[in-house]
Amino acid sequence: MALKAIVHVGLKPGVLDVQGKAVANALQGLGFVDVEDARVGKVIEIDMAGQDRAAAYDKVREMCESLLANTVIESYRIEIAQ
Amino acid sequence: MALKAIVHVGLKPGVLDVQGKAVANALQGLGFVDVEDARVGKVIEIDMAGQDRAAAYDKVREMCESLLANTVIESYRIEIAQ
Repeated sequence: MALKAIVHVGLKPGVLDVQGKAVANALQGLGFVDVEDARVGKVIEIDMAGQDRAAAYDKVREMCESLLANTVIESYRIEIAQ
Repeated sequence: MALKAIVHVGLKPGVLDVQGKAVANALQGLGFVDVEDARVGKVIEIDMAGQDRAAAYDKVREMCESLLANTVIESYRIEIAQ
């Protein structure tokens, strides 16, 4: 058996989301005039060996700090699923 | 009041996820030997004017088909939140 970790990474509030602005502008340009704003984030799903959810959470937090998120401008949220 | 649409976009099963493989390899290289595989997807949050959730869902599906997802290789999932 293995665990699956799902990491959501997004820009911190106050950081200009140029990709999101581009998406919102493009949608408005396509005629979707109801669109007010958009934000773009990443989701990383990781398959991990092992059964210990608490240990997995700690490891994934380390992964976020060292590789998955740029913590200067990005925040992250971790879910551990079976 | 407004609605928020959350669109999850990911590669279809069977499509090689090079970004995910790169993440998995990088994590293993950093010493996270429990990592077996990784997949990377996108999340797009859209703020929309209006109150009609069903109409919003239909519009967001159109957005996915025309701009947000490359439906040849990507699948998408839509959530409408308040």
